[in-house]
Amino acid sequence: MPSYSAPVKDMQFLMHEVFNIAQMDIPGYAELEPDFTAAVLEEAGKIASNVLTPLNAVGDAEGCRLENGVVRTPTGFKEAFDQMREGGWPGLDMPSEYGGQDMPHVIGTAVGEMFSAANQAFTMYQGLTHGAASAILAHGTQTQKDTYLPKMVSCQWTGTMNLTEPHCGTDLGMMRTRAEPQPDGSYQISGQKIFISSGEHDMAENIIHLVLAKIPGGPEGIKGVSLFIVPKFLVNDDGSLGPRNSLSCGKIEHKMGIHGNSTCVMNYDGATGYLLGEAHKGMRAMFTMMNEARLGVGMQGLAQADVAYQNALAYAKDRLQGRAVTGAENPNGPADPLIVHPDIRRSLMDQKSFTEAARAFMLWGAALIDRAHRNNDAAADGLVSLLTPVIKGFLTDEGYDMTVKAQQIYGGHGYIEEWGMSQFTRDARIAMIYEGANGVQALDLVGRKLASDGGKHVMAFFDLVKTFIKENDAHPELKTQFLEPLKSASKDLQSAAMFFMQNGMKSPNAALAGSNDFMHLFGHVCLGLMWAQMAKTSFAALATGTSDTAFHQAKLATGRYYMQRRLPATALHLTRINSGAAPVMDLPVEAF
Amino acid sequence: MPSYSAPVKDMQFLMHEVFNIAQMDIPGYAELEPDFTAAVLEEAGKIASNVLTPLNAVGDAEGCRLENGVVRTPTGFKEAFDQMREGGWPGLDMPSEYGGQDMPHVIGTAVGEMFSAANQAFTMYQGLTHGAASAILAHGTQTQKDTYLPKMVSCQWTGTMNLTEPHCGTDLGMMRTRAEPQPDGSYQISGQKIFISSGEHDMAENIIHLVLAKIPGGPEGIKGVSLFIVPKFLVNDDGSLGPRNSLSCGKIEHKMGIHGNSTCVMNYDGATGYLLGEAHKGMRAMFTMMNEARLGVGMQGLAQADVAYQNALAYAKDRLQGRAVTGAENPNGPADPLIVHPDIRRSLMDQKSFTEAARAFMLWGAALIDRAHRNNDAAADGLVSLLTPVIKGFLTDEGYDMTVKAQQIYGGHGYIEEWGMSQFTRDARIAMIYEGANGVQALDLVGRKLASDGGKHVMAFFDLVKTFIKENDAHPELKTQFLEPLKSASKDLQSAAMFFMQNGMKSPNAALAGSNDFMHLFGHVCLGLMWAQMAKTSFAALATGTSDTAFHQAKLATGRYYMQRRLPATALHLTRINSGAAPVMDLPVEAF
Repeated sequence: MPSYSAPVKDMQFLMHEVFNIAQMDIPGYAELEPDFTAAVLEEAGKIASNVLTPLNAVGDAEGCRLENGVVRTPTGFKEAFDQMREGGWPGLDMPSEYGGQDMPHVIGTAVGEMFSAANQAFTMYQGLTHGAASAILAHGTQTQKDTYLPKMVSCQWTGTMNLTEPHCGTDLGMMRTRAEPQPDGSYQISGQKIFISSGEHDMAENIIHLVLAKIPGGPEGIKGVSLFIVPKFLVNDDGSLGPRNSLSCGKIEHKMGIHGNSTCVMNYDGATGYLLGEAHKGMRAMFTMMNEARLGVGMQGLAQADVAYQNALAYAKDRLQGRAVTGAENPNGPADPLIVHPDIRRSLMDQKSFTEAARAFMLWGAALIDRAHRNNDAAADGLVSLLTPVIKGFLTDEGYDMTVKAQQIYGGHGYIEEWGMSQFTRDARIAMIYEGANGVQALDLVGRKLASDGGKHVMAFFDLVKTFIKENDAHPELKTQFLEPLKSASKDLQSAAMFFMQNGMKSPNAALAGSNDFMHLFGHVCLGLMWAQMAKTSFAALATGTSDTAFHQAKLATGRYYMQRRLPATALHLTRINSGAAPVMDLPVEAF
Repeated sequence: MPSYSAPVKDMQFLMHEVFNIAQMDIPGYAELEPDFTAAVLEEAGKIASNVLTPLNAVGDAEGCRLENGVVRTPTGFKEAFDQMREGGWPGLDMPSEYGGQDMPHVIGTAVGEMFSAANQAFTMYQGLTHGAASAILAHGTQTQKDTYLPKMVSCQWTGTMNLTEPHCGTDLGMMRTRAEPQPDGSYQISGQKIFISSGEHDMAENIIHLVLAKIPGGPEGIKGVSLFIVPKFLVNDDGSLGPRNSLSCGKIEHKMGIHGNSTCVMNYDGATGYLLGEAHKGMRAMFTMMNEARLGVGMQGLAQADVAYQNALAYAKDRLQGRAVTGAENPNGPADPLIVHPDIRRSLMDQKSFTEAARAFMLWGAALIDRAHRNNDAAADGLVSLLTPVIKGFLTDEGYDMTVKAQQIYGGHGYIEEWGMSQFTRDARIAMIYEGANGVQALDLVGRKLASDGGKHVMAFFDLVKTFIKENDAHPELKTQFLEPLKSASKDLQSAAMFFMQNGMKSPNAALAGSNDFMHLFGHVCLGLMWAQMAKTSFAALATGTSDTAFHQAKLATGRYYMQRRLPATALHLTRINSGAAPVMDLPVEAF
């Protein structure tokens, strides 16, 4: 049975040695001293390891069951959800006026990684609630906030987001769900939504659905879409639960993974709904949820990669098979452990060098969000907006690959469900798809984000890399081992951006044909930047004296692996991008 | 529900226009005229599409059940197996003296691809029988051949291979299963074997297990392993079935995929077995099965990629979502089909350019095997032996990735089991693991095959590439579009081989740290060579006049995609190989 050990030490290193968050000029960050964050992270880690991890296989094996319109979650989920509520975890980074703990997003992200790693299907119930609450917080009236937020912040009520319909996923302009205005100012919502995560379940008193629908007579297409609050039970003025709304779960899907989360077909049959935000501006409100959700999904890629890696590593140290090519390393045993073999080591280093840098990337992104929100910093907002599709797309593509590598280390046992490695792969697979499939992320990056505000944000990113290199190039080892490879990778990224600028206007296909490669190229440069920053910290720690020499030496060795073995992928991505539209688009549709 | 259309046209193109098999000086090949092979392939294609494809989802959903020691296969499997037997398909390329049809391996490979694509779990029952029969054919006494082969060639009896034990998979020297010699010349086999595909089922009268075990007093380790024939029912002298042998299926595994195939724990409790081949030379006999099985597994990678691609393509043409960036292509519809989007096209081209070249590679490899066996050609034998780990490892790694890409095209529907795309991914996953995990293939390639016979076979491969380039470089388009990229990729492969030669002796880790990259580099060069050969054929057909212009133009466009977008991966693999052992091995085990 797999286990999970929360990466508290690594997170502390990132927060306090690499990023020095307590010194950042962001409101609320001064309190994030090492002792404080350690206490939070250790407590979260215990819940992840002791409460959520044991339920992960249970959720996978049992799945959810739909019985007479009610979804039964797997054995133990309800009790664990109560425990999460009692600990106040769902409201960790929500405002205290609605019962939250006011902590910055950077802490929510670190804790979220642990919960996701331990049990992705379970953690989605509160993750979606968080997203729905954020949308109400940003766009709701004061009455709506007062009605829903206290219960949602505590997860007494949970939330969902309803976008997809059978005939439209990405292309929401084709939506058919209707919202008929009523004399009392409410709306009657009718239509069918599919793929609704946590759409129905038995762990909360009420479920607050946020539903996209069209008000008849509004603009055509995506501009005529509005967002509605549609509670499972209507809420009386005194906050008590009123009658059951006209909505139901028609079916739950049988999926490849995340079996513990109920994925519902939701039918709205003239259900009472309340407009959230402005009419016809539903996409804007929905994007509040979506951007948060996309970062959360990127984090899932990292989280599954990390838990899979931890178990692969334990197996590689434990399983005896073959002898080291350079001579027996376990001469008294019948064979050496798997980890002596270079190709096993190569796979473990792929995983380790990814997860540690991805974690840095996530925390850096989270701090940018805090800066954007808490300091009203437009530059930080623009940068994190640019990076959002990279975090979502790159970390989930790579995260999935890492779970496949981890599974491979188990050999035949990796394919047998009882060992648990298959579940990491199957669960990680969804992250490449939901909240905008990764092709849509690449399109968003190249088609929208790259040129937004006149390309200001991507220029800011390049400046940031350049400045870091310039400021630190006096350190010879940092320079040769980290800064030079980073510089070369960053040049590849700049060349690719240049190619799009020169060709994208006259041939949009030339840019879009390279969009997936650009997203990966960008992701590698980001992880390369993270490694360079971590290496700077570790070189400094080793030079000035540290009680943890082995930790910093391991960081440097892992970082060097990334710079030498992973980062050079940027050149391949650039080659593909430079080949332009022709290879991709030459074949006529009918010739496929 | 997914469908499958047998690639008869593509196979005919490869056999008769690219490789001209009927003109090859291999005994039995002269009969392989286009009309004849078309008849065989079309008939096989009908069975694949109409009989095996509909059972694929059934097998996945129902799986196998162990009831009172008997394994029940999914609904319809038994009837389909009868149909396969009646059609004589299992013995297609087996000797006529045992009831087979004497066809060359190249035909067996083409037909095998179809059956695997349609239903991998089902096809494994006969695939393993074929492998076991081949081992008896190569190493059995005349009595053994007469006793077992007629029934196995017809699949009246099926076969298995028993290698793995709970504590040893790759490292078979640690085997504990014992074979005690009996006065009558037979052996009593005792021990437990795991991961035995088709180990027990209800589709055949008898199951002939080939079991590796150690005869007490023999050499230590792998050199003391012998191979035994251990039938489920003992066979009387007149060929009728005798008493049940002392062996049983203790458990069937719950796996990620190939649910329709029973993966058994087999317990041998003093079961009667008969030595196959020489005592203590069991590995040699087992390798007859293993090499055949490895090529068959490589084919599974291609097969799953192809069927997944076919369904992804159909979906991409059918599903309306969004508009082409260059203007609506389906202006009267609510949206354009997915295939208009460059990133969807990129994914489809990845898949198409892989499967078509992989198919060529498989058929070329099969023809080499025929030449090795039927002409006793040592050069062909050496070359195919070198290519076997590449076929197994590269085609299954890439094949799996292609199923993931195909699944991605379905968006959320790809994650829902009823659409069938998840099954292709889950089934394809096993091919990277069984018959020697791909890391073992890479080790076999770099540690053994590369330098075997003084490196003669890899030099022959380089010569073959060089000669092809030289002989065809008068054609300007072939030269610039295909031969030059192939030359560059082949140079990368030669540099990598050179790096291993220069560094491998003093630091074996330097070679093994790059083994996975070398296997992939080699695979890309092979597919590049296949594309160059196909392009030569298509350029010639277009120049001399063909009734099928569109087919040949599509070949060229698809090939150009491979050369421009996929083949440049060789440079990245070389960069990684050249980084040597240090990045991979620097981190001490205790620092992980």
